[in-house]
Amino acid sequence: MARALLALQARLRPLLGPRAAQRGLHSGGPPRKLDLRGIYPPLVTPFTKQGEVGYSHLEENLRLYGRIPFRGFVVQGSNGETPYLTQQERLEIVRRVRETIPRENLLLAGTGCESTRSTIEMTALMADGGADAALVVTPFYFRGSMTSAALIHHYTQVADASPIPVILYSVPANTGLDLPIDAVLTLAQHPNIVGIKDSGGNITRIALLVHKTQNEDFQVLAGSAGFLLAGYIVGAVGGICALANVLGTQVCQLEQLCQAGSWDEARELQHRLIEPNTAVTQKFGIPGLKQAMEWFGYNGGLCRAPLLPLSEIQVKGLRQDFTSNGWL
Amino acid sequence: MARALLALQARLRPLLGPRAAQRGLHSGGPPRKLDLRGIYPPLVTPFTKQGEVGYSHLEENLRLYGRIPFRGFVVQGSNGETPYLTQQERLEIVRRVRETIPRENLLLAGTGCESTRSTIEMTALMADGGADAALVVTPFYFRGSMTSAALIHHYTQVADASPIPVILYSVPANTGLDLPIDAVLTLAQHPNIVGIKDSGGNITRIALLVHKTQNEDFQVLAGSAGFLLAGYIVGAVGGICALANVLGTQVCQLEQLCQAGSWDEARELQHRLIEPNTAVTQKFGIPGLKQAMEWFGYNGGLCRAPLLPLSEIQVKGLRQDFTSNGWL
Amino acid sequence: MARALLALQARLRPLLGPRAAQRGLHSGGPPRKLDLRGIYPPLVTPFTKQGEVGYSHLEENLRLYGRIPFRGFVVQGSNGETPYLTQQERLEIVRRVRETIPRENLLLAGTGCESTRSTIEMTALMADGGADAALVVTPFYFRGSMTSAALIHHYTQVADASPIPVILYSVPANTGLDLPIDAVLTLAQHPNIVGIKDSGGNITRIALLVHKTQNEDFQVLAGSAGFLLAGYIVGAVGGICALANVLGTQVCQLEQLCQAGSWDEARELQHRLIEPNTAVTQKFGIPGLKQAMEWFGYNGGLCRAPLLPLSEIQVKGLRQDFTSNGWL
Amino acid sequence: MARALLALQARLRPLLGPRAAQRGLHSGGPPRKLDLRGIYPPLVTPFTKQGEVGYSHLEENLRLYGRIPFRGFVVQGSNGETPYLTQQERLEIVRRVRETIPRENLLLAGTGCESTRSTIEMTALMADGGADAALVVTPFYFRGSMTSAALIHHYTQVADASPIPVILYSVPANTGLDLPIDAVLTLAQHPNIVGIKDSGGNITRIALLVHKTQNEDFQVLAGSAGFLLAGYIVGAVGGICALANVLGTQVCQLEQLCQAGSWDEARELQHRLIEPNTAVTQKFGIPGLKQAMEWFGYNGGLCRAPLLPLSEIQVKGLRQDFTSNGWL
Repeated sequence: MARALLALQARLRPLLGPRAAQRGLHSGGPPRKLDLRGIYPPLVTPFTKQGEVGYSHLEENLRLYGRIPFRGFVVQGSNGETPYLTQQERLEIVRRVRETIPRENLLLAGTGCESTRSTIEMTALMADGGADAALVVTPFYFRGSMTSAALIHHYTQVADASPIPVILYSVPANTGLDLPIDAVLTLAQHPNIVGIKDSGGNITRIALLVHKTQNEDFQVLAGSAGFLLAGYIVGAVGGICALANVLGTQVCQLEQLCQAGSWDEARELQHRLIEPNTAVTQKFGIPGLKQAMEWFGYNGGLCRAPLLPLSEIQVKGLRQDFTSNGWL
Repeated sequence: MARALLALQARLRPLLGPRAAQRGLHSGGPPRKLDLRGIYPPLVTPFTKQGEVGYSHLEENLRLYGRIPFRGFVVQGSNGETPYLTQQERLEIVRRVRETIPRENLLLAGTGCESTRSTIEMTALMADGGADAALVVTPFYFRGSMTSAALIHHYTQVADASPIPVILYSVPANTGLDLPIDAVLTLAQHPNIVGIKDSGGNITRIALLVHKTQNEDFQVLAGSAGFLLAGYIVGAVGGICALANVLGTQVCQLEQLCQAGSWDEARELQHRLIEPNTAVTQKFGIPGLKQAMEWFGYNGGLCRAPLLPLSEIQVKGLRQDFTSNGWL
Repeated sequence: MARALLALQARLRPLLGPRAAQRGLHSGGPPRKLDLRGIYPPLVTPFTKQGEVGYSHLEENLRLYGRIPFRGFVVQGSNGETPYLTQQERLEIVRRVRETIPRENLLLAGTGCESTRSTIEMTALMADGGADAALVVTPFYFRGSMTSAALIHHYTQVADASPIPVILYSVPANTGLDLPIDAVLTLAQHPNIVGIKDSGGNITRIALLVHKTQNEDFQVLAGSAGFLLAGYIVGAVGGICALANVLGTQVCQLEQLCQAGSWDEARELQHRLIEPNTAVTQKFGIPGLKQAMEWFGYNGGLCRAPLLPLSEIQVKGLRQDFTSNGWL
Repeated sequence: MARALLALQARLRPLLGPRAAQRGLHSGGPPRKLDLRGIYPPLVTPFTKQGEVGYSHLEENLRLYGRIPFRGFVVQGSNGETPYLTQQERLEIVRRVRETIPRENLLLAGTGCESTRSTIEMTALMADGGADAALVVTPFYFRGSMTSAALIHHYTQVADASPIPVILYSVPANTGLDLPIDAVLTLAQHPNIVGIKDSGGNITRIALLVHKTQNEDFQVLAGSAGFLLAGYIVGAVGGICALANVLGTQVCQLEQLCQAGSWDEARELQHRLIEPNTAVTQKFGIPGLKQAMEWFGYNGGLCRAPLLPLSEIQVKGLRQDFTSNGWL
């Protein structure tokens, strides 16, 4: 682990610039791992009519996102339709994103595979491609065997080997598996594991994770805009929010209201984001997210099959969730 | 409905005293339904070694609770082991509690049965016994048939007939059924339905219920101390919390910190309440709740079978959840 | 337990008539507990337009059922809308059914309540009312606490006290709880527990229960006509089948084909019963069951609220499930 | 079986031709698609201590299996730890297995990926590698979007493109998704879809699938030895059974007893296979399956991480499930 720690510190140095400092990194003492505070859109992958990755569309989205005070970006999360991408496409995407976004934006890359060895390989490849940290989803296909012991072993191996910091990622809606709390607490002590993205939305669990890791350099990110305000109040430091692909300015505004302690305005804004958020996640999925992006001037593009485009009725329902909250 | 409304207004008058006013009821204009703001312990039913209701033990608990700024009390909730009580015991309990607690304390009584007609009868009986409002759990045995339409019909019939205001009660951990949001929104418009106790803990859902009922006289109560802080920040007005039977002062303190806007202290307190709360609910159930009450000077008493007393190992685990957070 | 055993033997004597003998009871040695082999409809409770129990309608159904070779009848199962009945109604029903049906028909009565003490009381009352055996559903409201230990304790207490044999009843679709296999195996050794109705439909589990209780006087009944054939092939001795209220002759015919070893015909008949069975259970619930009964000349009657009558579209769907299989 | 063998040989001949073979249709006579009747072990992938595929160990297993009357073999099913294999390893395995097993053994290869395009590619590669049919698991990561329409679209595209017949594969324990019945019925009409492996174990569903596809050339395979007897009685034609890796002779004997109509012996044998089957699937997973294989003279080998080897206590429990049923 010592080697990993050194590699990590070397990697962190360029990140400890003025912006990082201003976000509260220790200027003295042992360096804080990696400041994750802020909002990140998990980027979608716009596909062309021919079913190919629309790299230029992706890059245009990134240029448009440059106006929004995001802390960084996630590539190869669920919303990137990652299970539909080849390894080559995944590497090309991470390279292009890294080249397009400013250096001070953090780039988090999904690297979780089912096997430990593949996850280690993918993490190394993504680090080479320019990722600042690896977002590692729980392996889950053999979920009956994914005990705390198995998961601790998996993440420890990955974090030991990874040239970049690791962020745990629990998304039970897709995986049917919630990373057990005791496993998180053990893993939080690893020098190369810096946080967790929790998409389950169980706010009691999120609060407990913050509480029980308060003595570690470990940060909790809300995995959805639906509980971002609640996440902040219990101690989360930011959010990776599908909705930020569509209403990025508003999600960042919610973050700022929380940090400024303007809770009444924050509540009002949070309330108006819930239905749009549910619409682009549970209700209409990635096809809904991409459709909504188009309405707001971004390139959603098509999905790969078996994801189907929305029906007309679904498009109306989606639109209604935005209009009834004053966003369209 | 008109008759129910008149009965309701008559009933509300004595409640609109100084304390109520101080809690912000309209002094002019149409009367606000019933101010639910605050913390309520859902009272346990202490049983004797012979398996009988220990009425004197219950009354002693209430006298001890007199020192704590509770808004009121719940009788015949899940924690009262209500499914184990006879109708006669239920009525005796509500009468004794009403006689023992001060008039300004609200008394909410669980009255939900599986059939609409029994719920109506039980609600009338509980109102006669002195309940200020009825807490009506969703019927659920035939959950496959409990559509929004069926539930709206049920609650409307109950609320039409009830001499006291009705509070909806959704507790999926016990019932396997989450009262659908569209049903809640329809029912929130009923003049005799004043709120919901939501024990599911889905904070996004709770926020949405607040948001979508903002133009109704409808109040949302958190159903557990585990997400009380998060509940307040998204607009809940109080909580019915099993943990308040044990750490009533602390739960009320959390409420006060939230109302005072002391969010940092609130967060710290909230964090320390989560493990004890989980211990007396999901983890060790009512036997755990009653055991913990004994440690804090209250009469937990025994449970009725088939609930078993905790094993020694369980008692140790329970104790650990309190000591590790500084409460014992 | 000795007393219970004596009471049981006294009770069994009249049952050991020619019909019982012909069904294979031991003629020498220790008497077999109670021969459960055969088909039982779980009787519905027809309600009048005024919402009262239509006793005469129920009795007429029983007279019509007299033409069908049922082994017996179940009162107060789920399909009897038991959670919607008062105790008085429940007793009146069991008495009337006992008076109406021939002595050689077994009468099984649902007696399971949430508390052990209420279940014991209800079992005694039902035995007085003429029930030959008690069908005791798992308590489930506090399902988090319903461990094997708690359930073994509960059923042992009930069986010790019961003047009539006890049949375990596991129906996870309603209760959210599957009686654990280890609990069943322990309870199968109790002299006053004679079998289980398993409505979960997991055929591997049913086969294992038969296998592991082969040295006990313990019989397994399929809880639905949907897996009756599969149940027989793995060793179940009969079925308590909602569909038998509608297509009683056909369900009994399926039983006879299985006993005669006419498996090809059995399979063909079983296949044609699946959709009608699903229609009157999961798909359209008790309102569907009662509607279908009307089409076949029985008195389904109305349901009590909150169960709603079927919509027109639902009635069409229900009818389709019978016509497409050649039953209407 | 002799007849089946002849049918098979007839069937295989045209598979070598171009277009007719693509869809697997006979060029003359009533074209039955592909006779799937029989038992198939889903082969495990033995890994060496270095974590590499132990090809020679795999080949040795196949030679040992040569003594058992299997209908064929499955490669790249769940039990092959397929999610842990690289594409290159997958191709190498299918090629080696094809070379090692006799021509008359069917070789079914798992080819299901999350995206339609990858599934099409993998199917083509596996066909090239010598697979006789493709076993295509449901895509499931975005299960909220995997509607019947999406799944029908997916499988239709795959079956249209596939040079070999397609077998649907529903395994909800791993995927959290049960291929909807209406989708199966639609897909059963596709000329290049010849059957389904149903691992859910819902025998009512399996019977209904047989019933509703009786006019199609569509065959249902049980996905586990736990319900093989029940599967046969309702019309399944065979089974793909993890347990066949360990107790292959016995599983084939159960098949033969079912085909001979020796139901009593079949029942007795089935009963003794349930606990061993559960042990090597749900209870101890693939590590349990591999450990048990070692006891019976096969090369189980190691698993890849994150699957952990069994603990000593687990090994004892596993052994107990075999000894208590007389297999060790």
